[in-house]
Amino acid sequence: MPTAPRSTAPTEFAYLGPEGTFAEAALGTVTGSPGTVGTRPEASVAAALTAVRNGECAAALVPLENSVEGSVPATMDGLVTGDPLVITREVFLEVAFVLAVRPGTDAADVRTVASHPHALAQCRGRIAELLPGADVVPAASTADAARRVAEGEFDAAVCAAIAADRYGLDALVTDLADHPGAVTRFVLVEPPGGLPAPTGADKTTITAVVHDRTGALLDLLAEFAVRGISLARIESRPTRERLGVYSFSIDVEGHVSDRRVSDALAALHRRCAEVRFLGSYARADEQPGKPVEERVGDQAFAAAEAWVARVRAGTAV
Amino acid sequence: MPTAPRSTAPTEFAYLGPEGTFAEAALGTVTGSPGTVGTRPEASVAAALTAVRNGECAAALVPLENSVEGSVPATMDGLVTGDPLVITREVFLEVAFVLAVRPGTDAADVRTVASHPHALAQCRGRIAELLPGADVVPAASTADAARRVAEGEFDAAVCAAIAADRYGLDALVTDLADHPGAVTRFVLVEPPGGLPAPTGADKTTITAVVHDRTGALLDLLAEFAVRGISLARIESRPTRERLGVYSFSIDVEGHVSDRRVSDALAALHRRCAEVRFLGSYARADEQPGKPVEERVGDQAFAAAEAWVARVRAGTAV
Amino acid sequence: MPTAPRSTAPTEFAYLGPEGTFAEAALGTVTGSPGTVGTRPEASVAAALTAVRNGECAAALVPLENSVEGSVPATMDGLVTGDPLVITREVFLEVAFVLAVRPGTDAADVRTVASHPHALAQCRGRIAELLPGADVVPAASTADAARRVAEGEFDAAVCAAIAADRYGLDALVTDLADHPGAVTRFVLVEPPGGLPAPTGADKTTITAVVHDRTGALLDLLAEFAVRGISLARIESRPTRERLGVYSFSIDVEGHVSDRRVSDALAALHRRCAEVRFLGSYARADEQPGKPVEERVGDQAFAAAEAWVARVRAGTAV
Amino acid sequence: MPTAPRSTAPTEFAYLGPEGTFAEAALGTVTGSPGTVGTRPEASVAAALTAVRNGECAAALVPLENSVEGSVPATMDGLVTGDPLVITREVFLEVAFVLAVRPGTDAADVRTVASHPHALAQCRGRIAELLPGADVVPAASTADAARRVAEGEFDAAVCAAIAADRYGLDALVTDLADHPGAVTRFVLVEPPGGLPAPTGADKTTITAVVHDRTGALLDLLAEFAVRGISLARIESRPTRERLGVYSFSIDVEGHVSDRRVSDALAALHRRCAEVRFLGSYARADEQPGKPVEERVGDQAFAAAEAWVARVRAGTAV
Repeated sequence: MPTAPRSTAPTEFAYLGPEGTFAEAALGTVTGSPGTVGTRPEASVAAALTAVRNGECAAALVPLENSVEGSVPATMDGLVTGDPLVITREVFLEVAFVLAVRPGTDAADVRTVASHPHALAQCRGRIAELLPGADVVPAASTADAARRVAEGEFDAAVCAAIAADRYGLDALVTDLADHPGAVTRFVLVEPPGGLPAPTGADKTTITAVVHDRTGALLDLLAEFAVRGISLARIESRPTRERLGVYSFSIDVEGHVSDRRVSDALAALHRRCAEVRFLGSYARADEQPGKPVEERVGDQAFAAAEAWVARVRAGTAV
Repeated sequence: MPTAPRSTAPTEFAYLGPEGTFAEAALGTVTGSPGTVGTRPEASVAAALTAVRNGECAAALVPLENSVEGSVPATMDGLVTGDPLVITREVFLEVAFVLAVRPGTDAADVRTVASHPHALAQCRGRIAELLPGADVVPAASTADAARRVAEGEFDAAVCAAIAADRYGLDALVTDLADHPGAVTRFVLVEPPGGLPAPTGADKTTITAVVHDRTGALLDLLAEFAVRGISLARIESRPTRERLGVYSFSIDVEGHVSDRRVSDALAALHRRCAEVRFLGSYARADEQPGKPVEERVGDQAFAAAEAWVARVRAGTAV
Repeated sequence: MPTAPRSTAPTEFAYLGPEGTFAEAALGTVTGSPGTVGTRPEASVAAALTAVRNGECAAALVPLENSVEGSVPATMDGLVTGDPLVITREVFLEVAFVLAVRPGTDAADVRTVASHPHALAQCRGRIAELLPGADVVPAASTADAARRVAEGEFDAAVCAAIAADRYGLDALVTDLADHPGAVTRFVLVEPPGGLPAPTGADKTTITAVVHDRTGALLDLLAEFAVRGISLARIESRPTRERLGVYSFSIDVEGHVSDRRVSDALAALHRRCAEVRFLGSYARADEQPGKPVEERVGDQAFAAAEAWVARVRAGTAV
Repeated sequence: MPTAPRSTAPTEFAYLGPEGTFAEAALGTVTGSPGTVGTRPEASVAAALTAVRNGECAAALVPLENSVEGSVPATMDGLVTGDPLVITREVFLEVAFVLAVRPGTDAADVRTVASHPHALAQCRGRIAELLPGADVVPAASTADAARRVAEGEFDAAVCAAIAADRYGLDALVTDLADHPGAVTRFVLVEPPGGLPAPTGADKTTITAVVHDRTGALLDLLAEFAVRGISLARIESRPTRERLGVYSFSIDVEGHVSDRRVSDALAALHRRCAEVRFLGSYARADEQPGKPVEERVGDQAFAAAEAWVARVRAGTAV
């Protein structure tokens, strides 16, 4: 069971827009220097995924989870329904807000500060402290707020550094969040094709649907544990419309080209009402993977299979 | 180990404001007829929890998870840090958006439609269909949009029915969401005290922190499985700042006054780096609980303990 | 991994002698009509196994466990040390003792009754009742006692019906045991070669050596449980001379040509300090095997492997 | 749940006779200097157990397993049927055979050598080498052979050193076994009463009967594993007459006065069709017990129970 690599890198990317948000910043870390590829903001995660399914874009970068807002069901659910898509890359981006103003504006001049309500909520304390008299105004997105500042509608925007750049604004304050360090995990999704080559520090994402009985999750996790595979994330997903089943979204350490991972996936295929492979890709977080026991390395699998073949042939005990 | 019941119901409630949002509607199902209790909108989940910790309010109703937006880390994290609070009740509320206008307004008259960006996103398709020429304008909240419609600033708001009522608006369209059926799960939290009486269909919520090794989650879940306890929800929680540990947020079926549940909690206390009890309360969803095996009923526990006591005394085998 | 069948049946058999014991009776159920094959009594289990290892005999029938005497370590240990041998058949034989006398002898004439001490112990009560005045004399084997009765040295022997036949004695009493129903399980062992064809009701016997840590057995058994394989027998075996390891002798339901069994054996090969295959063969007891879940049937394995192959090739999710 | 200690030591002991066998030698290590207690050889394990159940003896020493012959079903089964008895002590005795002769006899003088057939089998090689011309004669027991040598009936006996002493014989050869090092494990059984005090290196023996379904043993062992308890011995026991159930004989490390052990026993009581406590006693083998994790020490249990009690009272989270 060799794993076929992907032959070519995508050249046209959808992302959760609009332009100038953190999603575009994250996409920049994927696409490299601007101009070499096309990027296309979409109004929703669903629209970004559709653009890939349609063939209008080769890949889409969408948020999967955020350390402040939590998981992003639109992405999770968008991947498990509809035509198959797989994750080929993950990107972690620190969500660092800046206070963006037109050049020459001082804090004392700021009467109105605009942003997406989530961003305003995450910076509420600092805004009250720095701009005690300013009106706080909701905008459709952090980038939209920056655009409207550039146009003179508002005095300041809470936005990504990329939006300040794009609209010619200055960052009066960086690290504006009340609790800095928020991180969003984005994933790049593509139509199935060859898989990213294993790097030795990979993750595999799956969705598994099991019959809803006591112990079902334990039995499912046992399939990973007996094969020495560590979980990196697990989340039960509501399946309200489907009584009697339970769905889990799971990241494990390892690549489907590792025998222990493919063996566990085969076991899940036998055990689960449904299992969907959502990709194997290089892990991008700073956490080191847990060491892999020798007993579940590819060599151990190969040796065990060779022995069993001899046993079945009657030539070994 | 008898369980002490709560003596009195709270009379002053904080909730995630502002007034006129779904949170207030959910609170109405808890507090009963208006006027008998005080309610107090807060600007954030953290502020609502603080009001309870301060003693300014007796309880707070905050969102825990939403079928479209996912889990609410602000609530999860707000419960596990700071002074203890426990969940005493859960409320499921369908998130049904209406298109609210001033009385006498027709769809053809609507030039501007306002709401919180999340609400606008969830109703994008229907708005485009019903109001193809209208400008879509972000607001700080769905209730804020309704207020501004009442004041004449915009023509229509996407909001909860309760906001239309409050501001004297008419619901031109109900069930406006592109994918109806979204549900938010709210929880009522209070300072520790007596526990809600068991009802026979209860949930218990805990947070458990384990050392990050392969199989740690399996071992933790085995403590529930050997005692015949079913999981209702599980989510791994990032603990970026704490290397080498892994945190799980878990709902199980049953009440801590059930022996199988208290026995499992004791086991987790022994096994985990940290475990926090976040409440036992009547389940409010429509899912029936799974049947409890006789072997883990309170009578089976009592009989087993009596036998072991006789064995230890040397009077039984 | 097809399983190669055995090409020819053995024609020369060793067994635990001497002639006329239950082992010879059991061998008769294997070899069919007398005269078509050679049989050869050996003085010990070790000698019988050696005769097969040497090539002097094609197979040996030796006792593995007895419902009165327990397991037979000489057989267990004899199979796991030395050149490989595998079990190709099991035979259950009821150990029914007769009281054998020379033709014409009445109970009242019996002054001496001889047998192997084990047989005398199992029939003590009936002998005391039937022959209250007789002297009880130990012999080297039940068959030796019968021979000496035939020679006139003693008046009666406690032996197998086959010994009475062989030495021209009459069975004055059958079912002489105080607690009838004792059964001995014999196994036919041969050098490795093709395997007995699966019958749909098979057993597989293995020995597994694991590192001696808490939970090691649980981990080992989990490999069978996740694959839906039932245990038929388990026994921890002392390995005094090898500190820090623990040895188990295990029978499971199923044939190594069943994918779930060969997959579990491969897992044990990876996990255990040592694992030895001791044979797959038709089960001969009256117990029906437990039903096999569809999820672990060969078709489920084949479907899962095909899916995983497509996932690895990038053509399925 | 304090554990009541035994108040007095027994003063009259039954054992598996006859006098002069290894069982009597083992009993000597229990009773101390001869003459202070009464000892009483019985003709069978069953008779020895009956003598205790009748009250004729205070305790019985019977063999449980032997490194050459395996487990002793008569003891196992004798303990689990009939009135309750518990193991209060275990004794390991090396089975060292001597070649006993009348004083003055040389090897060259030996024409006949007698013993129990098992002993003769275990020394066959050495006898053939040392006494190539001697006739080998079965006796009812090793001690019976020694007695008959003393009486002049035979020239030599294969027996225990204690039998040579008792009958005034000289040990011409010691360590006569072909494979020296065989060990028998005896257990002292008494009627239930207080328990032996825990020593910090104890064993607990139980019998558990479970319903015969795939995974039943795994579930049972999980009760020990979650509580950090190590198995020292496990053996599935045939229960032919009881279809649909499976019986296990198990030794675990630890004393029932250890909370982890009593907690596991309570769990087995809830889970099993039947569980029988067969005693907690000081381990007598040379194997060190495995270290006990702090999380399952008595202090951890006490702390966990105190916390759960506070949680149930509503005063802790």
